[in-house]
Amino acid sequence: MELQEIFEIFSANDNFTILTHKSPDGDTLGSGFALCYYLRSIGKCANVLNGDEFPGRYGFMYEQYQAQDFEERYVIAVDIADPNLIGSKLARYQQEGAVDLCIDHHISNKHFAKKTYVDAKASAAAMIIYEILKAGSAKISDLMAKCLYTGIATDTGCFKYENTTPKAHLIAAELMAYDIDYANVNRQMFDVKSRARMEVEQIVTSNMKYYFDGKCSMITLTKKLMEECGADQAEFDGLASIPLSVEGVQIGITVKERHTDYYKISVRTTDKLDASQFCKQFGGGGHIRAAGCEIKGTLEEVEKALLDGVEKLF
Amino acid sequence: MELQEIFEIFSANDNFTILTHKSPDGDTLGSGFALCYYLRSIGKCANVLNGDEFPGRYGFMYEQYQAQDFEERYVIAVDIADPNLIGSKLARYQQEGAVDLCIDHHISNKHFAKKTYVDAKASAAAMIIYEILKAGSAKISDLMAKCLYTGIATDTGCFKYENTTPKAHLIAAELMAYDIDYANVNRQMFDVKSRARMEVEQIVTSNMKYYFDGKCSMITLTKKLMEECGADQAEFDGLASIPLSVEGVQIGITVKERHTDYYKISVRTTDKLDASQFCKQFGGGGHIRAAGCEIKGTLEEVEKALLDGVEKLF
Repeated sequence: MELQEIFEIFSANDNFTILTHKSPDGDTLGSGFALCYYLRSIGKCANVLNGDEFPGRYGFMYEQYQAQDFEERYVIAVDIADPNLIGSKLARYQQEGAVDLCIDHHISNKHFAKKTYVDAKASAAAMIIYEILKAGSAKISDLMAKCLYTGIATDTGCFKYENTTPKAHLIAAELMAYDIDYANVNRQMFDVKSRARMEVEQIVTSNMKYYFDGKCSMITLTKKLMEECGADQAEFDGLASIPLSVEGVQIGITVKERHTDYYKISVRTTDKLDASQFCKQFGGGGHIRAAGCEIKGTLEEVEKALLDGVEKLF
Repeated sequence: MELQEIFEIFSANDNFTILTHKSPDGDTLGSGFALCYYLRSIGKCANVLNGDEFPGRYGFMYEQYQAQDFEERYVIAVDIADPNLIGSKLARYQQEGAVDLCIDHHISNKHFAKKTYVDAKASAAAMIIYEILKAGSAKISDLMAKCLYTGIATDTGCFKYENTTPKAHLIAAELMAYDIDYANVNRQMFDVKSRARMEVEQIVTSNMKYYFDGKCSMITLTKKLMEECGADQAEFDGLASIPLSVEGVQIGITVKERHTDYYKISVRTTDKLDASQFCKQFGGGGHIRAAGCEIKGTLEEVEKALLDGVEKLF
């Protein structure tokens, strides 16, 4: 499918439901709301749906948004690679044939929709939405531009990660022609933390242990520690990058207690080591710099198994 | 002066000294080394000088660099707004007429050199160096591109801050055509911390206090606390952004003991409050979102004075 072809689908149809993926992030929501606001701007009916709540940090995207009442006739999934990511509360859309069009940037896309447009080179789905709108010379509002910028910025770690392409920068430059208050968006997305999260990170770093001349670091999150901390379980997500953020560390390991004697392991590595290879020996896998596995045993056994594995690397 | 005119200075002269500012950052060094490597590539003699040591984090810029032995004939200052920033160890260059050309992006530039090129709209001096080289169709090496990218990335907080322009993104996109390993550069510049710094941040956040329903937060660094921590004094720099990183905080204050009963105050605000205005009442000043002042008195007196000032804001 060409970009122009997708753009024409927007004009040719009406009463759109736009699906965003569960545990929504800035890209799925930024893509979804930008598309929704565009469709509404040309007189179409459109809603954005999510199986979970919209997180407060993306409030600017939906504070003016009101769900519309209409009989759905066309379903678009954005940034959704797999029907499972639609989430159980929207299970009706997981059935075959339920989604008319899927716009995505994951190479792993399952092609579950009737029509699928995947650009695996795009750093974010928001880049594809922008290109579709541009292909159709669509009028882009400031709010749409802000949603799209947020999608690109959040999926690239503010243009920091390897998935940042020259095109991501070029589109960011174009979106800055709109009134998007990008510095404030970036502050909210990247610098601001809840007080609970701040405390969690503090506890985690104070418990970090170093091995092999500081080339390996490990944090261990036991149920007891997490309960004592009193913060929401969600505040313990996304901590896996912390062990690798210490100078000299080549492999950072996060050990999280799931059940008694059952641990979930997240591994992050610098370009010197292969995280996926490391996790394979424990039956896990993932990407070269970020991988995971699960290990059964007491905490001591799990830590020992991991450190034995690390020792082989050096 | 036109960009092309500056480019011609490079060809017309030889035996260059390139001055970078004291407490060197990624922009002054990235600009300086990129320019130095360019001059050497066209058969000129050139050295990069700094009154301080080159910090290890920028090691990739100078690991292949060797100082050349020649009789200096042309002096270029990069990213230096004021002769004071040359540093006392290079005091000979602070004298009038010592610097032939200054290339800078600070609006406050003192025009101390014989020729000055200031583009205050540039997010980084490295952007100007790139534009000069481009104006002259200069051949840019991978290492030069990497130095320039680093200058732009570090001065914009990886394209996060308000000073990021569309042009910063466009130039980043062009520099990514070279082999610059930007993801690794960004990891080193923005994600990696020394173990000592990690500990300092942990101590600082654990001592953070909140006032006025969490709209104000304050960290206090006494000499005693800093000594107990055992880390280098330098590890206590740049902590001022931490109080403002907590959700809901509109004014973040860092109080640092200089001498007995003498405190240096750093203030950071969100777009709701004016940091410069706030600091003026204590005889200080600065920018609208980042300002500072100095207050004499006991710690209790200083904290009370600050909180009285904050109370008036709400």
